[in-house]
Amino acid sequence: MSAFSRFTPLVQSLPSTIPFVGPEAIERQRGRPVAARIGANESGFGPAPSVLSAMGAAATGIWQYNDPENFELKQALARHLGTQPANLAIGEGIDGLLGQIVRMVIEPGLPVVTSLGGYPTFNFHVAGHGGRLVTVPYVNDREDLDGLLAAVRREDAPLVYFANPDNPMGSWWDADSVVAFARALPQTCLLVLDEAYGETAPAGTIPAISALIGMPNVIRTRTFSKAYGLAGARVGYVIGTPETAQAFDKIRNHFGMNRIGTAAALAALADQDYLADVLGKIAASRKRIAGIATANGLKPLPSATNFVAIDCGKDAVFARAIVDRLMADHGIFIRMPGVAPLNRCIRISTGPEEEMMLLEEALPKVIESLGRQ
Amino acid sequence: MSAFSRFTPLVQSLPSTIPFVGPEAIERQRGRPVAARIGANESGFGPAPSVLSAMGAAATGIWQYNDPENFELKQALARHLGTQPANLAIGEGIDGLLGQIVRMVIEPGLPVVTSLGGYPTFNFHVAGHGGRLVTVPYVNDREDLDGLLAAVRREDAPLVYFANPDNPMGSWWDADSVVAFARALPQTCLLVLDEAYGETAPAGTIPAISALIGMPNVIRTRTFSKAYGLAGARVGYVIGTPETAQAFDKIRNHFGMNRIGTAAALAALADQDYLADVLGKIAASRKRIAGIATANGLKPLPSATNFVAIDCGKDAVFARAIVDRLMADHGIFIRMPGVAPLNRCIRISTGPEEEMMLLEEALPKVIESLGRQ
Repeated sequence: MSAFSRFTPLVQSLPSTIPFVGPEAIERQRGRPVAARIGANESGFGPAPSVLSAMGAAATGIWQYNDPENFELKQALARHLGTQPANLAIGEGIDGLLGQIVRMVIEPGLPVVTSLGGYPTFNFHVAGHGGRLVTVPYVNDREDLDGLLAAVRREDAPLVYFANPDNPMGSWWDADSVVAFARALPQTCLLVLDEAYGETAPAGTIPAISALIGMPNVIRTRTFSKAYGLAGARVGYVIGTPETAQAFDKIRNHFGMNRIGTAAALAALADQDYLADVLGKIAASRKRIAGIATANGLKPLPSATNFVAIDCGKDAVFARAIVDRLMADHGIFIRMPGVAPLNRCIRISTGPEEEMMLLEEALPKVIESLGRQ
Repeated sequence: MSAFSRFTPLVQSLPSTIPFVGPEAIERQRGRPVAARIGANESGFGPAPSVLSAMGAAATGIWQYNDPENFELKQALARHLGTQPANLAIGEGIDGLLGQIVRMVIEPGLPVVTSLGGYPTFNFHVAGHGGRLVTVPYVNDREDLDGLLAAVRREDAPLVYFANPDNPMGSWWDADSVVAFARALPQTCLLVLDEAYGETAPAGTIPAISALIGMPNVIRTRTFSKAYGLAGARVGYVIGTPETAQAFDKIRNHFGMNRIGTAAALAALADQDYLADVLGKIAASRKRIAGIATANGLKPLPSATNFVAIDCGKDAVFARAIVDRLMADHGIFIRMPGVAPLNRCIRISTGPEEEMMLLEEALPKVIESLGRQ
């Protein structure tokens, strides 16, 4: 064993794990390129042409560090959201911000409430700080707000995670229910309200900024990775009270943001026409995926996100076989939930028609081949 | 007070600080644009044209997350370094990696040894994890290897930071001394050997990879931010034993790397001709800066880095006045060390001749204006 001998006991106890295996690793493992990349809830529709132009214009400045205060991006986001720059903190995607949030709240042994089958990367960070995960089962494929609240109270938990709309199921709660949940929480519990898929949700799903902005125990997380088509840019942000948002400055990697991603985010925010266009394409693609599922005897679940969870009607072994065969035989990369009963489903990201045609052609073959076994 | 009430006691005790104020913030404070950006040890020579081409080619793929395993970059780095991919971990610049290293080793109260006046961002991370900083003064403007070793032994410290070449002084030790220092350390102490400026150092400064690669308690940190001209790309890496390098997977933000930066780093590594060209320009620029300093009655210190520390011959107030007046009156952004006796110096980054001409014109005026006061 040639690891350093004096890592903290907590770090020594952790596995060298990864919350998600990337499609590139799957390609390498299988020796087969991905023909349709519709598994990571990226946006195959891509960013706006105006964003690509802005990235090109920013390229020659890459020898400079990004502004550690993220001044311009905060200003633009504040204008867009109707809030103040002081209400915001910027980070390397929501994943990075979740790590900071957990670090700010969790000491070893403290309970953290989330849904059973919820976002694995959040759980990864909780484990990484020695938190004790308290999980609440989904009810009807939706996160259980009453159950989450009861668990927080029972455990006196300082942290609860709730995604609206939800990943991996695509389900959602209306804004009033979310606000009621936030208000019912003890003020000693920090709510992480993950709104990564907020742009793709129906009207009435996302609470107004003003509804939660005064609550020190609410942090809303947002990203440019999904509807804006900038997963590889690594730009996310949080919305909270000024004092809660400012707390990130205590621990964040101040020079961690990259310059091209920041330029891309600024341009993306400025091009709301393009976003509206993409949202239409995502909605159409959800229907397309649902149609393909139905045609194959599978049941698509309603979705407020840029993906569709599909109930395959059997167990996790069957769903896993579909995921595996789609990739192995057809180069189609999708994913599936990791925990029962959600893992009777597969999860397919929206994308351009070329990918949908590949899926449409491959899925019947996969289903048939599995039926024959 | 509207911050969340239950942040950890450690986080509550931390200031919302920033290790460095960025030039953008200085511009905003002074209402004056930076005319010469030669303060943050960036490379005004920029990256290679081949790098800009690679960034452009990668732009349309920005809707995809970066490979979380950083497979290609690790392969390329391993070939370049003559080591194995398993010896490497990739991160969002050395700053991000330093945060991970501190987190892996430090629990509240544990001692961490560094030089008095050494890299503030490392100290920021130590504070952020509750470590107790034990500082060793520079001797003759160089980090004191014997003093660092003695402090580690005295404190039974699990972590020591040493930069070679050094920032902010530009001084360096020969490779044999560095290797001897590493071998003399107790195996219960992790050495962070920061080689951010390794490319610009004279031959014989940087230990061979083979000299330290078998030591579980040595982590070498490298970056594309300095000589490669990619500070805004946020790509750094560490070299260690496979087991030590693998430990980063336990806690890192696996999807934290941005896609354009990764493409830029790959292209930069492939264009060693350009690097050689830039290294020549940096060396010439060091001489240019030294000449300007000497012509103004100041004493340039020898430098193995892409900057020159200049002894202004008086106290910190005088050095600070030069830094302030250069920016306020001439828009020239430079920095200075933060701690006595180093802070009798100013620190000027190498850069293109246009910036040098601005400096050459401004510095005599600043010195003269201060003499009149």
